[in-house]
Amino acid sequence: MGTEGILMRDFQYYTPTQVLFGRGTERKAGELVKRYGGTKALIHYGGGSAKRSGLLDQVTASLEAAGISWVELGGVVPNPRLSKVREGIDLCRREGVDFLLAVGGGSVIDSCKAIGYGLRYDGDVWDLFVKKAAPQACAPVGCVLTIAAAGSEMSDSCVITNEDGWKKRGLSNDLCRLRFALMDPELTFTLPAYQTASGCTDIISHTMERYFSGAETVEPTDSMAEGLMRSVMDAAKRAVRDPADYDARAAILWASSLSHNGLTGCGRGGEGRVGDWACHQIEHELSGMFDVTHGAGLAAVFGAWARYALPSAPARFARFARRVMGVQETDDTKAAEAGVAAYEDFLREIGMPTSIHELGVTLDDETIDRLAWKCTFEGERTIGSLRVLELEDIKAIYRAAK
Amino acid sequence: MGTEGILMRDFQYYTPTQVLFGRGTERKAGELVKRYGGTKALIHYGGGSAKRSGLLDQVTASLEAAGISWVELGGVVPNPRLSKVREGIDLCRREGVDFLLAVGGGSVIDSCKAIGYGLRYDGDVWDLFVKKAAPQACAPVGCVLTIAAAGSEMSDSCVITNEDGWKKRGLSNDLCRLRFALMDPELTFTLPAYQTASGCTDIISHTMERYFSGAETVEPTDSMAEGLMRSVMDAAKRAVRDPADYDARAAILWASSLSHNGLTGCGRGGEGRVGDWACHQIEHELSGMFDVTHGAGLAAVFGAWARYALPSAPARFARFARRVMGVQETDDTKAAEAGVAAYEDFLREIGMPTSIHELGVTLDDETIDRLAWKCTFEGERTIGSLRVLELEDIKAIYRAAK
Repeated sequence: MGTEGILMRDFQYYTPTQVLFGRGTERKAGELVKRYGGTKALIHYGGGSAKRSGLLDQVTASLEAAGISWVELGGVVPNPRLSKVREGIDLCRREGVDFLLAVGGGSVIDSCKAIGYGLRYDGDVWDLFVKKAAPQACAPVGCVLTIAAAGSEMSDSCVITNEDGWKKRGLSNDLCRLRFALMDPELTFTLPAYQTASGCTDIISHTMERYFSGAETVEPTDSMAEGLMRSVMDAAKRAVRDPADYDARAAILWASSLSHNGLTGCGRGGEGRVGDWACHQIEHELSGMFDVTHGAGLAAVFGAWARYALPSAPARFARFARRVMGVQETDDTKAAEAGVAAYEDFLREIGMPTSIHELGVTLDDETIDRLAWKCTFEGERTIGSLRVLELEDIKAIYRAAK
Repeated sequence: MGTEGILMRDFQYYTPTQVLFGRGTERKAGELVKRYGGTKALIHYGGGSAKRSGLLDQVTASLEAAGISWVELGGVVPNPRLSKVREGIDLCRREGVDFLLAVGGGSVIDSCKAIGYGLRYDGDVWDLFVKKAAPQACAPVGCVLTIAAAGSEMSDSCVITNEDGWKKRGLSNDLCRLRFALMDPELTFTLPAYQTASGCTDIISHTMERYFSGAETVEPTDSMAEGLMRSVMDAAKRAVRDPADYDARAAILWASSLSHNGLTGCGRGGEGRVGDWACHQIEHELSGMFDVTHGAGLAAVFGAWARYALPSAPARFARFARRVMGVQETDDTKAAEAGVAAYEDFLREIGMPTSIHELGVTLDDETIDRLAWKCTFEGERTIGSLRVLELEDIKAIYRAAK
């Protein structure tokens, strides 16, 4: 368990979000909107399930009790869209909304964050996503979390898809960090097994992207990240078996926040956003073009990426194999390969695909060329940091994953 | 690596402190005081080393560059005292100070927090520590951290000693959480080996007190806590050997914050403050009466406490033994005992005592009775949660540790 060659790069850590975790915390929504200065809220949500389950009624009752008025805007879809964001900005301006309350998962939260940016920007909000302008402020956002996956409830991240060209773009900035997050594990009991498994894959991936940002060891970050990944894998298997396993749901829900609030990247360095993010970026194009579930898409491409990147840092992959997957093998390359295979076994065990065709998506050469080209932002960037990937590398990974 | 019987109790998590970590971050002090609304700062510090090293000059230069005026108050001692706190409150009121900047370690930060409470309270600040009144606000505090140990830079905790009766009392409240913490590992290079080892013992203890709050497993908290403890042990050995090992110093410094910001207690439940805290409370009386270094005091009493508490939760101690100390033994009680012994070996390896007489303190029966009586707040409380300890239990632990 030595930590030879540990290394700590400069970092910032800022997680101001107040978390209330446990049964019934959704009933604190009104009190918290008020505490953070809201007088009129936008209740933003996705499909009808928040309504049918009675959750929206509980939230509005709590707002009413706190003397907060509100307007509602539903219809946020996975891979949340710019048109809905613009609709939200218009509605909030018209209605004098001063607090954005997301009731849902990462898509709803991201849509709220984008509305928050838009409310504090004079031009078109898409400008901020294509870096035509830098955000200077964001209206306050809070959430009642219903899906454990994206980690947006504590992250600085916001990803929006522009239907005009189906461009998916992320904006990372501390300004959008939530004022509060209310997390009741029971709200996630109704999530189907496939969505649960996809969420867990996304959670693990958020830690993995940081863990595989480079070859070096960074402590205490790595040891904590390893514990977190093992823990989520255990809990994922339990929650897929028994959707009402409170403690497994709780572990997954809390891990979703810890995996994406910056903690598992502290000291790993790198310019701008810390992490490798190649799997995420390769997947973003897939889910942008085919609307597949993000976590399942990550599962489908992981093995192909890992085997492509592995020769660049066998010792790093071997550490992952030994400490997270329990591989006992002294040779680094063999251990590394066994670790990737063991992780794929885990993915299959929770019902995740390990190739793209299992998503119901058939990739021909032309589509691969198009996905890879979009993934480079039409020739404008490389992706990855553990192994830097250019256009041809990305194509090779899509081919190996198909 | 199963997590049978995992459990997650309700919790709150709130760590609003903005952390800037890395070389030269102390030069950001002025910019951050300004960002958080300060116009005139109290620079609070301990002995002359902050002055002699040139650190105070760097801090004042950065305040000056940001247009912040200031007054200075040095002389904070370990186990910081009420008289200094009162002096600070008077000075700040007289001078119109609106921001408290701690330049030092936990004692200086705690003294600043207490001044902050006092500035927002009409009566005598000690009222708040003896629960005669509840704090309603705290003036803003930030720090330039020079010692990795107490974790006060991200904690809700503040411990002050009243020289009138040498009463040491803690006050835990989110109101005092720092606005920012500037952490430059190089500032800790000059810390002597004994202080370094004491600090590391305190850091591990902050996680241990939470880890041993009860018998149950809580994920992902436990797995992350285990990684953190292993990591600090590795880094402690390195920093004691080589005081200028940047990465070891960095790992220790960051771990000091993570061990006491609430993270390693999430979901462990318990009324009020999460954790067992018996070792801390037994040690507080020792350092209150004899002014021993807090971390060394913790090292001296740990084994006696652990062997006393072990029969209440052998499986818990066995998990610690296997996952943190690397003990390979299938019988839980044997593994548990081996784990405690292995941790004592680690303490000796970094130069820490494992009994009270090694601190230069000889305890006779009368002194033990007095320490234990004070530890129960003169019969008003029991201590501990994994094993609840009454007066006679506390005496037995002092006797076993002497």
